Amino acid sequence: MKLYDLTLSGNCYKVRLFAALAGIPLEIVPVDFLAGEHKRPPLIELNPWGEIPILVDGEVVLRDSQAILVYLARRYADEAWLPGDPAAMAEVVQWLSTAANEVQNGPGAARLVDKFGYDLDKADTLRRAARILPLIDARLADRDWLALDRPTIADCAVLPYVALAPEGGVALDDFPHIRAWIARVKALPGFVPMPGV
Amino acid sequence: MKLYDLTLSGNCYKVRLFAALAGIPLEIVPVDFLAGEHKRPPLIELNPWGEIPILVDGEVVLRDSQAILVYLARRYADEAWLPGDPAAMAEVVQWLSTAANEVQNGPGAARLVDKFGYDLDKADTLRRAARILPLIDARLADRDWLALDRPTIADCAVLPYVALAPEGGVALDDFPHIRAWIARVKALPGFVPMPGV
Repeated sequence: MKLYDLTLSGNCYKVRLFAALAGIPLEIVPVDFLAGEHKRPPLIELNPWGEIPILVDGEVVLRDSQAILVYLARRYADEAWLPGDPAAMAEVVQWLSTAANEVQNGPGAARLVDKFGYDLDKADTLRRAARILPLIDARLADRDWLALDRPTIADCAVLPYVALAPEGGVALDDFPHIRAWIARVKALPGFVPMPGV
Repeated sequence: MKLYDLTLSGNCYKVRLFAALAGIPLEIVPVDFLAGEHKRPPLIELNPWGEIPILVDGEVVLRDSQAILVYLARRYADEAWLPGDPAAMAEVVQWLSTAANEVQNGPGAARLVDKFGYDLDKADTLRRAARILPLIDARLADRDWLALDRPTIADCAVLPYVALAPEGGVALDDFPHIRAWIARVKALPGFVPMPGV
């Protein structure tokens, strides 16, 4: 099973992190992002969106880091990471949406500007970060994990761009519950870091 | 089962649409959005994010339209709407992420500016719309439905803000496959419209 990967991508890290925590072996295929390898054949044929990560497992080809987490969890991991119970599954999916939208377009996009020079509206990314981080911090005030009473793929999806927020000029000093949660994830058996986390 | 709802919200319409197609009865509770009812108790206690829709089903309380679709599909609908097979489920989830991010922040946000006067960067919303609509149109060039060979919650999640794109000044004239797909959804048994769709 191949993961087309970029070390510095938080979206790719979501997958590497979950696979490490759940003990799922991945063949990491580094993509030459600066050369635009993901915008050309053969990768653009695997993902017409021109983005990474891409997961290839036999006939299964998936873009979108959240969808890849769902696939790996339901196919290769313990049920606890993404339960089949409808209410528990939906609780997790809430945080997949948060990862795809508010976290990606807030602290994630702020980092793209500061670290990689993307031409995005930095003020807009900071406004989005200033809205979402207090909500996440409040959520974690009286619980250890985002979705359920144990780590799930929700934590793997949300953590990367939250933990990387300082690389976008977004400090986590005012969010003690987020910082404690990051420390809890780092203490999980199998945890792997990425540069900046 | 209560849905806290706003008629003109595409996110609320995702839920009303799917419930109608799947034959799931909902008690619609209109929210006085202009008066900020969703920002005050009791609604803010149900959803600290201050957004609608909110679904309440006994002990289950869910924000996020994508998560609500997952809950309703897995608990009350035929398996076909969101299969348990990992690859098929992940294929659907890819489009839930697309609905939460690219569609919401592209055509969805363009409509917020034009129709409701939101103070957002209109040019940015148009750039995002100009990227995502061709990708969706291409996806539908040789298939009837977004994720699988039949309608799923992916179609219910993506359709509203794509079909409403003209209300944000984003024409669908150049996207014949999207227009044919919207027509197919409208022809499904049980389909319900919303203003603008």
